[in-house]
Amino acid sequence: MLRIEGPEWLDDLPRPALGPGAADEDRMAWVLDVLDRQVAERTGGPFAAAVFGGPDGAVLGVGVNRVEPTATCVAHAEVLALAEATQRVGRYSLAGTGAVLVTSTEPCAMCLGALVWGGVGRVVCAAADADARAIGFDEGDKPADWVAALGRRGIEVVHDVHRDRAVAAMRRYVDQGGTVYNG
Amino acid sequence: MLRIEGPEWLDDLPRPALGPGAADEDRMAWVLDVLDRQVAERTGGPFAAAVFGGPDGAVLGVGVNRVEPTATCVAHAEVLALAEATQRVGRYSLAGTGAVLVTSTEPCAMCLGALVWGGVGRVVCAAADADARAIGFDEGDKPADWVAALGRRGIEVVHDVHRDRAVAAMRRYVDQGGTVYNG
Repeated sequence: MLRIEGPEWLDDLPRPALGPGAADEDRMAWVLDVLDRQVAERTGGPFAAAVFGGPDGAVLGVGVNRVEPTATCVAHAEVLALAEATQRVGRYSLAGTGAVLVTSTEPCAMCLGALVWGGVGRVVCAAADADARAIGFDEGDKPADWVAALGRRGIEVVHDVHRDRAVAAMRRYVDQGGTVYNG
Repeated sequence: MLRIEGPEWLDDLPRPALGPGAADEDRMAWVLDVLDRQVAERTGGPFAAAVFGGPDGAVLGVGVNRVEPTATCVAHAEVLALAEATQRVGRYSLAGTGAVLVTSTEPCAMCLGALVWGGVGRVVCAAADADARAIGFDEGDKPADWVAALGRRGIEVVHDVHRDRAVAAMRRYVDQGGTVYNG
């Protein structure tokens, strides 16, 4: 049995009802609210993600990076959001449901695999790989053209949605002495 | 908070004391004992993995595929074994400790990322990607030469250790009507 704890503030956080046709910008704005809180609370690395889907466009899963606080190498925001989403729906994949992964930074090598297994049809990103690398985080070894590889699976990728705001949160994390692990 | 349950038989399974210099074959034989039990108990997909390390070469983490029974897209054997291992050691990465990931099939795209974050120095595989694909499992989009990419990070990959035995277990899984998901 695997357990990955908290943070408590996220477990208790109200989830927005944005509707099934909500704009990427509005969904990302909420994910970046979560990221701002994560940095302010110092509860892990500067990354947040959520899966939106279902008939009402609800938040099916949300996660923040919990790698260092829980000593769990796989506890990335996207992994936690995708796992919660499939558990909530009660099926191991969301394929065919139009679910969307909204993430504060383009997915690392691991999370890129995870989102395919989670069956999301679209990925919306704020910061780019290069932004994470610029502050010392490693994104791992992704396929040379990972966007095209997702495209061949019918998964669309949207870049640079509120990118500056995500980068600012990462910089705040570094400036306040947050650990840049795997760097 | 994320929970991924069981299986109960694995939670209760005694772990071998093989010693720090144990042969790959002996470590893999135990992982394939776990895989045989997984297939016999019908508690998930036909994959098992363990992380060996520490001064006494102990099993730091062990996992079997729990994707379908727990409706968790990320519940691959390697992810669960790596997460348990870093939690047990109390540090988010095993880098520099000489930890070894022993897995019944070459890692999928997600698990390939996860093992780098877990900080293992060596990966020992039984079945190949092609064996998993031959029965309909998808391994995801890995970098074109993923073995060389791991090599550049100082991670060695060993192939074909008791490969036939792992393939036989996968075939038993299919023959008894096990779900080939993401296929």
